Amino acid sequence: MSNIHFEKIALIGIGLIGSSLARVIRREGLAGSIAIATRSAETLKRAEELGLGDSYTTDNAEAVGDSDLVIVSVPVGSSGLVALEIADNLKSGAIVTDVGSTKASVIAQMQPALPTSVHFIPGHPLAGTEYSGPDAGFAELFTNRWCILTPLPETDPEALAKLAAFWEACGSRVDRMDPQHHDLVLAIVSHLPHLIAYNIVGTASDLEQVTKSEVIKYSASGFRDFTRLASSDPTMWRDVCLNNKDAILEMLGRFSEDLASLQRSIRWGDGDALFELFTRTRAVRRGIIEAGQEVDAPDFGRQAAVSRTGSN
Amino acid sequence: MSNIHFEKIALIGIGLIGSSLARVIRREGLAGSIAIATRSAETLKRAEELGLGDSYTTDNAEAVGDSDLVIVSVPVGSSGLVALEIADNLKSGAIVTDVGSTKASVIAQMQPALPTSVHFIPGHPLAGTEYSGPDAGFAELFTNRWCILTPLPETDPEALAKLAAFWEACGSRVDRMDPQHHDLVLAIVSHLPHLIAYNIVGTASDLEQVTKSEVIKYSASGFRDFTRLASSDPTMWRDVCLNNKDAILEMLGRFSEDLASLQRSIRWGDGDALFELFTRTRAVRRGIIEAGQEVDAPDFGRQAAVSRTGSN
Repeated sequence: MSNIHFEKIALIGIGLIGSSLARVIRREGLAGSIAIATRSAETLKRAEELGLGDSYTTDNAEAVGDSDLVIVSVPVGSSGLVALEIADNLKSGAIVTDVGSTKASVIAQMQPALPTSVHFIPGHPLAGTEYSGPDAGFAELFTNRWCILTPLPETDPEALAKLAAFWEACGSRVDRMDPQHHDLVLAIVSHLPHLIAYNIVGTASDLEQVTKSEVIKYSASGFRDFTRLASSDPTMWRDVCLNNKDAILEMLGRFSEDLASLQRSIRWGDGDALFELFTRTRAVRRGIIEAGQEVDAPDFGRQAAVSRTGSN
Repeated sequence: MSNIHFEKIALIGIGLIGSSLARVIRREGLAGSIAIATRSAETLKRAEELGLGDSYTTDNAEAVGDSDLVIVSVPVGSSGLVALEIADNLKSGAIVTDVGSTKASVIAQMQPALPTSVHFIPGHPLAGTEYSGPDAGFAELFTNRWCILTPLPETDPEALAKLAAFWEACGSRVDRMDPQHHDLVLAIVSHLPHLIAYNIVGTASDLEQVTKSEVIKYSASGFRDFTRLASSDPTMWRDVCLNNKDAILEMLGRFSEDLASLQRSIRWGDGDALFELFTRTRAVRRGIIEAGQEVDAPDFGRQAAVSRTGSN
């Protein structure tokens, strides 16, 4: 049990992130009660069946009443609407945060709508899987993952420290960053990779010379590594693209430029240029493994599991 | 123990594939003796320390003498040279095969050099990890993986059946394919994914606004999925690019075209187009999991392992 405790926490949105929060809050005893709100009656019913909270409503404003901590976990394009809905019902002194993958846009949407009597501190836990919905969440999702808080100039240090302690109690390591820099960093470590993955899976699906069943059958040769990211939640990713446009276009531009150069090396048979690129990229993975952000097992350690499947 | 048996098998090249073959041949009792040859004295020494074979030489011609099955496991750019080296020492009636990732180029390099008294049957086991060298191999590498044989018009059906039975005894499922079609299929399921992965890791390494240590630190948000492919063997991949140029350029062209279209959707805020792409790509992963070619666990099933690392 952690020292950090809130009388009441409201979770707005109960998908992968919201439901993982519900589970870890319960496990660590971080709240007296958990109020769950989501727009979809069906999702709410499922959250109730799973026993994720103490109260359930499709009315976001109702959930935030009396809450000391409000965590908005919705696609970033919906943050503004949620802020408008909850604004009048927020308890004075409450901390309001979010988990969105873009920060400048979320701040632009939410801040004007929220009363100055609450502490609005944008945040982003860098955690997730390719699954979505309340069934997909698990209490360990945030363990050893970074959570980036992007406080505003006027943010109260005490409220910031309390929110940081909350995320640490959830298992996260907490970092602070400028919202604009966050959006640039995420554009390269997350947004571009997802777009590239979606794109290659799209390209492979559209071929005439190679059938889709051949792509699936022989996918273990490399292609399948991309399909994990390319099966992430479409609504979330549409909203990320629309809400971090400038940084994403910048990274896409650089990527395409580099790819054109690589393509030229292949066309002209420049083996040295190819060898140089293929060599320097190796070191990056080593760094990631050393930083404890990746497993040091061949094939993500999944080989054995797939072999078992095949022996059926 | 399988029914298939060769008096002597020669393995030319003892990297990830060659050394995995050595291990599975031994485990399944597929050969009376295993002769190992590799150009590098250091690698040969390591193979001997690991006890992978029964005889060891840096002379490829010496290894193939009296062998009934010769398996060439070298970067595809070296196949022609190996064929020239071994041609005069091959036993009449021997089967000569390879494991290269491109087939038309390997056939063009090897066939003219080999005597008509041997059965040359090109092959390609779709198996591998991001690790290389004799230490990286393991007997289960081929389990449940496809091995594509690309027989020539004149290939003897009996020799073909024998080679297919060998790969099945190694754990593979065997397919037959036209060499040109193989090269097109592999360009999309393997070559393009590797190039895209190398390229994005290169782009991320070159940024000025985001540091390399930030990329590493926050890589779990998506980027790290690409680093596995981008840490594959540089020599192997240089040779693949140089030896399957036309098919790779065709796939790169399609990918870039699609990426330009995606970029345009982002620039103009076309949320519907983005949502449509992000939705249809989901089904492909489901197909791969159903085909037994991927694990059905979130995050490739690696979450738990990384969390353990983090708790140190």
